[in-house]
Amino acid sequence: MSRNRYARDFIVDRATELAGRLGLSAISTGSVARELACPKSSVFHHFPHKHQLQLGVLEAVTRELARQVVHPALQHPPGLPRLDQLVSGWIAWDGNCDYAGGCLFIATATEFDDRPGPVRDHLVRLYQLWQHLLDSMVRAAVTRGELRPDTDRPQFIHDLHGILLAYHHTARLLEDPDARRRALTAYQSLVKRWTAIPPPRDAGSGVTAAPLAAER
Amino acid sequence: MSRNRYARDFIVDRATELAGRLGLSAISTGSVARELACPKSSVFHHFPHKHQLQLGVLEAVTRELARQVVHPALQHPPGLPRLDQLVSGWIAWDGNCDYAGGCLFIATATEFDDRPGPVRDHLVRLYQLWQHLLDSMVRAAVTRGELRPDTDRPQFIHDLHGILLAYHHTARLLEDPDARRRALTAYQSLVKRWTAIPPPRDAGSGVTAAPLAAER
Repeated sequence: MSRNRYARDFIVDRATELAGRLGLSAISTGSVARELACPKSSVFHHFPHKHQLQLGVLEAVTRELARQVVHPALQHPPGLPRLDQLVSGWIAWDGNCDYAGGCLFIATATEFDDRPGPVRDHLVRLYQLWQHLLDSMVRAAVTRGELRPDTDRPQFIHDLHGILLAYHHTARLLEDPDARRRALTAYQSLVKRWTAIPPPRDAGSGVTAAPLAAER
Repeated sequence: MSRNRYARDFIVDRATELAGRLGLSAISTGSVARELACPKSSVFHHFPHKHQLQLGVLEAVTRELARQVVHPALQHPPGLPRLDQLVSGWIAWDGNCDYAGGCLFIATATEFDDRPGPVRDHLVRLYQLWQHLLDSMVRAAVTRGELRPDTDRPQFIHDLHGILLAYHHTARLLEDPDARRRALTAYQSLVKRWTAIPPPRDAGSGVTAAPLAAER
């Protein structure tokens, strides 16, 4: 790794930690230089604009989300097994997040939802990617007969998003020890609402319901 | 109104507006004095500590929530009609919030969930009061036979909370025009999941299912 790249990563690393404590909007060339006890010009050299530093933080958190949540889920079979893994992985990630401020995406969403600019634009794109990822998993579950063909996919994704937000809130602010159980119960109910009814055993079609659909 | 009280309310009013734009943690004696273009000592006279100013903002927003959402709901019959009204009132309030930063409670929850102190403590108490209010409505719906006797009330409230959080997020950050419809659909599904099955018409018990339960 080049020295330049190393310095850049080091700055982003500390900025991410600072954003976790004080929110992404507290990140600026000045605040990060103070945190690093280095001249402002050293930070400025890598990040001439404050928003580049904030985007660097979002990119670093996105990489962690991919590494800790998305990639492990993709090791599981498509459809519900993969979605189950994504949901439980997300909950584990949010619950054990290194960043003191909890999952930075959620904090940043409410922080920047009314501040037009490159950070908000990037955040919207990230959320759209996340929705797209969830949609591909729900679609696979429909194709494989685990969820009903008439599953309202956007509604499913909206409801699942609410479950994850409620988990974050219940665990972080209210420190409710039941937060994880409640979130998983809500997720099971959501899946059950759209679960395909397995064909009768004597249908003789040769098609068997997916194991997860049968369990619910 | 005394002159002192008037000045105090004026300060809180501008601080609330500022908190909506920059977040509650941006509120301090200094930032509010700058906003008001007055000496710091004038703000300090009413709010010697920063957290008193922040608590003043939370109290002002709570009064608005009571005035715009809770009191109108209490005009409706107990049980589901009242809960329906609370939910649609909350959505309307959050959607049309005067505060640029959206419903300050949601923004503040993620902002302060990891910052111990009087603001976080107060916020937790407010959320517990809100949960208590929802619980009393759900309990009334159970008592009146609109919801099933085995309704898991804490789960119901958790799930409803997720629906409201998802609405806020979908409407504010993603600017999805379907946000309200999605939230109301999710709420209807939640109620349906726990709706009591009306007794058969020929049961002759003299007990009729509540109108709302029958509609769903």
